[in-house]
Amino acid sequence: MSDRTTAQSTPALTRWEQRAEAPLFVASLLFLLGYATRVLAPHDAELWRDIALALVGAMWLLFVIDYAVRIRLSGLGHRFVRVHWLDTLVLVLPLLRPLRVVKVYTAIQKRRDEPRLSLYARVMTYAGMTSLLLGFSAALAVYHLEHGAPGASIRTFGDAVWWACATLTTVGYGDAVPVTPLGRVVAAGLMACGLALLGAVTGSSSSWLIQAFRREDEKGPPASG
Amino acid sequence: MSDRTTAQSTPALTRWEQRAEAPLFVASLLFLLGYATRVLAPHDAELWRDIALALVGAMWLLFVIDYAVRIRLSGLGHRFVRVHWLDTLVLVLPLLRPLRVVKVYTAIQKRRDEPRLSLYARVMTYAGMTSLLLGFSAALAVYHLEHGAPGASIRTFGDAVWWACATLTTVGYGDAVPVTPLGRVVAAGLMACGLALLGAVTGSSSSWLIQAFRREDEKGPPASG
Amino acid sequence: MSDRTTAQSTPALTRWEQRAEAPLFVASLLFLLGYATRVLAPHDAELWRDIALALVGAMWLLFVIDYAVRIRLSGLGHRFVRVHWLDTLVLVLPLLRPLRVVKVYTAIQKRRDEPRLSLYARVMTYAGMTSLLLGFSAALAVYHLEHGAPGASIRTFGDAVWWACATLTTVGYGDAVPVTPLGRVVAAGLMACGLALLGAVTGSSSSWLIQAFRREDEKGPPASG
Amino acid sequence: MSDRTTAQSTPALTRWEQRAEAPLFVASLLFLLGYATRVLAPHDAELWRDIALALVGAMWLLFVIDYAVRIRLSGLGHRFVRVHWLDTLVLVLPLLRPLRVVKVYTAIQKRRDEPRLSLYARVMTYAGMTSLLLGFSAALAVYHLEHGAPGASIRTFGDAVWWACATLTTVGYGDAVPVTPLGRVVAAGLMACGLALLGAVTGSSSSWLIQAFRREDEKGPPASG
Repeated sequence: MSDRTTAQSTPALTRWEQRAEAPLFVASLLFLLGYATRVLAPHDAELWRDIALALVGAMWLLFVIDYAVRIRLSGLGHRFVRVHWLDTLVLVLPLLRPLRVVKVYTAIQKRRDEPRLSLYARVMTYAGMTSLLLGFSAALAVYHLEHGAPGASIRTFGDAVWWACATLTTVGYGDAVPVTPLGRVVAAGLMACGLALLGAVTGSSSSWLIQAFRREDEKGPPASG
Repeated sequence: MSDRTTAQSTPALTRWEQRAEAPLFVASLLFLLGYATRVLAPHDAELWRDIALALVGAMWLLFVIDYAVRIRLSGLGHRFVRVHWLDTLVLVLPLLRPLRVVKVYTAIQKRRDEPRLSLYARVMTYAGMTSLLLGFSAALAVYHLEHGAPGASIRTFGDAVWWACATLTTVGYGDAVPVTPLGRVVAAGLMACGLALLGAVTGSSSSWLIQAFRREDEKGPPASG
Repeated sequence: MSDRTTAQSTPALTRWEQRAEAPLFVASLLFLLGYATRVLAPHDAELWRDIALALVGAMWLLFVIDYAVRIRLSGLGHRFVRVHWLDTLVLVLPLLRPLRVVKVYTAIQKRRDEPRLSLYARVMTYAGMTSLLLGFSAALAVYHLEHGAPGASIRTFGDAVWWACATLTTVGYGDAVPVTPLGRVVAAGLMACGLALLGAVTGSSSSWLIQAFRREDEKGPPASG
Repeated sequence: MSDRTTAQSTPALTRWEQRAEAPLFVASLLFLLGYATRVLAPHDAELWRDIALALVGAMWLLFVIDYAVRIRLSGLGHRFVRVHWLDTLVLVLPLLRPLRVVKVYTAIQKRRDEPRLSLYARVMTYAGMTSLLLGFSAALAVYHLEHGAPGASIRTFGDAVWWACATLTTVGYGDAVPVTPLGRVVAAGLMACGLALLGAVTGSSSSWLIQAFRREDEKGPPASG
């Protein structure tokens, strides 16, 4: 959302992005599913773990192809890597893909032709959905990195989800915390993203409520007559 | 407040809602009272515990009847469940009813004809009251689920209230935390609601203070003369 | 600040409030000083502890007299208690007096005739000063209530100040927490006040920074020429 | 940024400040580098530790010279200390220098002539960069003060960085906390700064997202045709 609006796009690139949006979103979900299966499947379910790994690999390949096509169509060459840094980051860390969910969400809403939610309600929905997906991804990654570490307080996937909830809302009880360096890096990433999304949730919820009360004010007198 | 304004209401539905508002609010408080008695009464007070259970059941029945009447009057059939999802959620989890307190609060304020509070003060009051009720409900539910669990750090109702305070304000000391899966689900719900309400409290308190200072500025020069 | 603007004041009341403002502020500081001495003085410094107690009592008497005069001048009779509920609360809990610091602060600024700070800077200063005073008062009260309790984690006044910092900023490490019921009530009060002030600090700091950047934008082009 | 706009500057002072900006920023980074080397170098690397100390001292000398020149040029005499209190504070505690990074950042952006980021994106970038630098400085200082203390939970520099992350985002797990008085003073400073910056990050991220959704709305209908 951010970098596309500042940098110009060629028409061919725009067309590609519109067509690739939905398939890539499905691929993102499959990636997440594959990763979740890989992480959560019991160790003796060899077959499932192998299928999951293959799925993760295949989806990543798709992301690489999409990235290559976009470099080509943009005509920017290697400058693409720097200009579209968010896309580059998302290519390297596909678990961050949920951050792009907004485009699909907006596209779906347009097609359904239903009365749309108010501006603030949509921002809240988007920020909330993104937080949920990011939190789930982070819980998977942290569980993956932590559950075997000595002295770990995150031992089950339930613990990891509980930790992700407490972290995203900045409550931070501290009863379940990552102890390995990599787990802490993932946690720091979740905090940083969570903080920005939190701002959007609280900000828009506040604006929404104030707006609702203001409307009540305006229609108040006739309603009582 | 949210779903009603986006979906159209039939006049019959609106009339029903206006009439049912106050009785339903009383029923919500009775439900909460019954639940509190059930949870907090000592184990040997069999009679009180049975009365409390009966009260909870009766109030729930009232909520179901109200919901059924509203489905009927709305003319939406089974689509009502999805369109008015907040009402459906509140039907399944009546402890969330405080979220609807705003309507009663606004209605009472209109009737009393007193000089009304400013917009921001009312948003703060509403968000604060809702937080208090939600926090109390969550403390009850968490105490109910946790106080007998092995290794629990929430053993008394006082601990549960203390935990709810620390959670709603996102302080999160971690000296009292839920350890059972169900208790953690309730806690996650409280965090999510608390976050949105927190946004409203801090946002409107900030706007209110800025407004107050701005007014002071405007009337400042003549006051010093 | 809040209740005065909504309820009308008689001219006599306004005059009294203007004259009493400064002395009452000094009295508030003396009250805090007395309370701090009482709480922090070593147990064998009998004389100092007695002087401190006398100071606290004398100041409280002043507050009661001011309250009585204001009831009389307002002509509201016993309704004053309810209409000016914030004043009533502050009379019962004089440690909350810092919340009224804004009036003195504004008055001083007007007299000094210096170039005044911008709106947001003043809101930040006020909310920050109030937080500091409230946090200090809460640290005193919590130290007073906790330091002798069995199993307490707040044993020194330094611990109490550290706890107040972590609580006001909603960081909440949990290494020092109140364990007695009364200590937790004070803590809950600090959280509630802290939350509202926090909203003012973050909200105005955000607005201030955005304003500063916007100004930079506007004067940007000529400055580079 | 704050005090310069309120107090008048002489032309000579402005010219000096413009010329000294970039060198002073480099000096700040060298100061930080020197301090980091001093703190993090192993105890037997005597040579490096001495070089680092010399670097820190030299840079501090530069800051003192700059401060003295600015006192001279401002023509304020000893009043400069009070009027430009932020500069005085930053002179005494050079680890706070990152707070001034905004000027350099704006200057660089102007020179590069690239399409500039939107207002909110720039506020987020500035507040984020400042937080990172402040957090890094605080982690260094806390590690320096804590790692040898008895009963310390911050033993490695990794722990200190992890603590700084959890503190800046107000998550506050409490698994790594300062225990020495000086370490807690640094922590309180980080909390206070972090809070104000947090307000800027969440506030601008919220405004940015709302703005982005609003734009999507406006260009929505033609895009679907």
